[in-house]
Amino acid sequence: MAIENGYYSHDHHGDYELISVGELQLEEGGTIPDCRLAVATFGTLNEARDNAILIPTWFSGTHQVWRDVYIGTDHALNPDKYFIICVDQIGSGLSTSPHNADGPNASIAMSKFPDIRIGDNVVAQERLLREHFGIDKLALVVGGSMGAQQTYEWAVRFPDKVLRAAPIAGTAQNTPDDYLIAEVIREQIMSDPAWKGGEYSSNDEVVDGLTRMSHIWAIKGFSTEFWKQEVWRALDFESKEAFLAGFLEPYFTAMDPNDLLTQAWAWQRGDVARHTGGDLAAALSRITAKVFVLPIDLDQLFPPADCEAEARLIPNAEFRIVNDVLGHLGLFGVAPTYMVQIDRHLQELLDAEV
Amino acid sequence: MAIENGYYSHDHHGDYELISVGELQLEEGGTIPDCRLAVATFGTLNEARDNAILIPTWFSGTHQVWRDVYIGTDHALNPDKYFIICVDQIGSGLSTSPHNADGPNASIAMSKFPDIRIGDNVVAQERLLREHFGIDKLALVVGGSMGAQQTYEWAVRFPDKVLRAAPIAGTAQNTPDDYLIAEVIREQIMSDPAWKGGEYSSNDEVVDGLTRMSHIWAIKGFSTEFWKQEVWRALDFESKEAFLAGFLEPYFTAMDPNDLLTQAWAWQRGDVARHTGGDLAAALSRITAKVFVLPIDLDQLFPPADCEAEARLIPNAEFRIVNDVLGHLGLFGVAPTYMVQIDRHLQELLDAEV
Repeated sequence: MAIENGYYSHDHHGDYELISVGELQLEEGGTIPDCRLAVATFGTLNEARDNAILIPTWFSGTHQVWRDVYIGTDHALNPDKYFIICVDQIGSGLSTSPHNADGPNASIAMSKFPDIRIGDNVVAQERLLREHFGIDKLALVVGGSMGAQQTYEWAVRFPDKVLRAAPIAGTAQNTPDDYLIAEVIREQIMSDPAWKGGEYSSNDEVVDGLTRMSHIWAIKGFSTEFWKQEVWRALDFESKEAFLAGFLEPYFTAMDPNDLLTQAWAWQRGDVARHTGGDLAAALSRITAKVFVLPIDLDQLFPPADCEAEARLIPNAEFRIVNDVLGHLGLFGVAPTYMVQIDRHLQELLDAEV
Repeated sequence: MAIENGYYSHDHHGDYELISVGELQLEEGGTIPDCRLAVATFGTLNEARDNAILIPTWFSGTHQVWRDVYIGTDHALNPDKYFIICVDQIGSGLSTSPHNADGPNASIAMSKFPDIRIGDNVVAQERLLREHFGIDKLALVVGGSMGAQQTYEWAVRFPDKVLRAAPIAGTAQNTPDDYLIAEVIREQIMSDPAWKGGEYSSNDEVVDGLTRMSHIWAIKGFSTEFWKQEVWRALDFESKEAFLAGFLEPYFTAMDPNDLLTQAWAWQRGDVARHTGGDLAAALSRITAKVFVLPIDLDQLFPPADCEAEARLIPNAEFRIVNDVLGHLGLFGVAPTYMVQIDRHLQELLDAEV
């Protein structure tokens, strides 16, 4: 049975539309009877229908951070020029997710929610764009972290539809280290007795597990230098403990444990080589998009070296390191130097002939 | 009341002697009524008493790994030339520790064990060397990780007694990131309901917490490249899961939860600047020893950058990076290229006039 969680609401996430793409058969064999995607759009689709930009979301994040930080008339992702579609991933808590599965999805609520893969998200998004928006080609797919995983999946699975791609702080094939990190993240939740195998009645009950999970983000999501340089002072906190208690812990404890587990499971298994029998080079060679591979220099989850190895396998790719002392969670756009770099890269990519 | 744990025995750790240094007043205000140190020695003290080398131990480790990997007639730490004294730290499970506090220490068993600092270990070791062995000067202090913390503490606290120092993969002042990592490690144990606030009756009861702790070591103790290059294959495992289940998990679940917590607490607070009112530069400037600062290149706990910043503050220090794909746990000496580097550096340091 679906449960209530006020965090996943218009109050907290502003405008978005829930659009059904119907029944979704899943790669792992299950089904979402009525797959509803939370979609936020910015700008207008032009008559040629060639100004569309797709943004898939990252673990625990939604369209909200893209709207607030990345999209605007002062950014490369400019709604005056582009029709920008941000699609919250399955399990995000806004789109169909364990905690909100009701009505036709009641049979897959909570612990009964099926395993979701990166590819399932991309298939659902493609259907959404084609059937609901009549969009056949994307000027750009851009996403960070799990959004980068989906970006790569788009470029490999639907090469004819993706003209440009900008995976930020993410890989096409998840690394074993990253798999283990996500497993540790999952473990923090699942080891909380209050999780009850996924059948709790409120996220508040699982506060201990969610809090511990937030601490894994503290030591892996941020860089060593973030803590050493006390960058949290720029966010008006007086100690690292206050930053944890005032920012990182409440950020995650508001969320739904099962939803996070669903996302982390997909993250662990992101791998475009599933299309080519495990041959990563063959998969990446399918990409026809012009690609800017944009890792963050101090990222502990998707280190630049891992991203660079993949970039070399993509026909038309440029490898460009983004500098950010925050590390992976630089994606939040907190550092004043971050968006300047992202905008410069995305603008150049969008301006490039393809 | 002390409890049994067969891991902390001669069966598992070979020869060592338990030597009492008497009552130890602690920096945090408590007392160990009868502080017993587990000591393993190799070689013979010469008549001039100037060939002594001290080795303090790291988190979860004992003299065992030093004996098996670092010490030998084919190594720089050569018992034919030096009198090598390896002292297991307080809380190591062999020296006085929460789980084995009995007899005169019965009042501080288990959850009643006092907080121990790096400095307490060094004070106890200095007393041991002076009173038991009649050693006044050390040709070398060498240790890894928490052993490096103790090495720095020795060089700052007793500069006249330390001629040479080789801190491997550790810092003089623990970084905030490292503090948080150790807190996550502690949290894995303390969040296990079977830990019972430290009053379990067997480490086996806390297997879940210890197992989760071992997973933190998987993602922080080893490097990204360790997992990517599947270095565990060299250890005869067939998958990363088999490596976890067959090596990392049993390694840690054999240990005592309270003992590990005691060690981690000290690790979190290692800081030579306590001697100089928080002024790290002033503390490190006290060092008269010739120092080789030896970080491991892919270390996620004590990254080379942190070690280099400290090396610059030490009057007579050389900064030398050790390359090891394992990362921090390269300290185990598994890579065939590791001890070659360590021996070269230590031999050069030992041969240097001071």
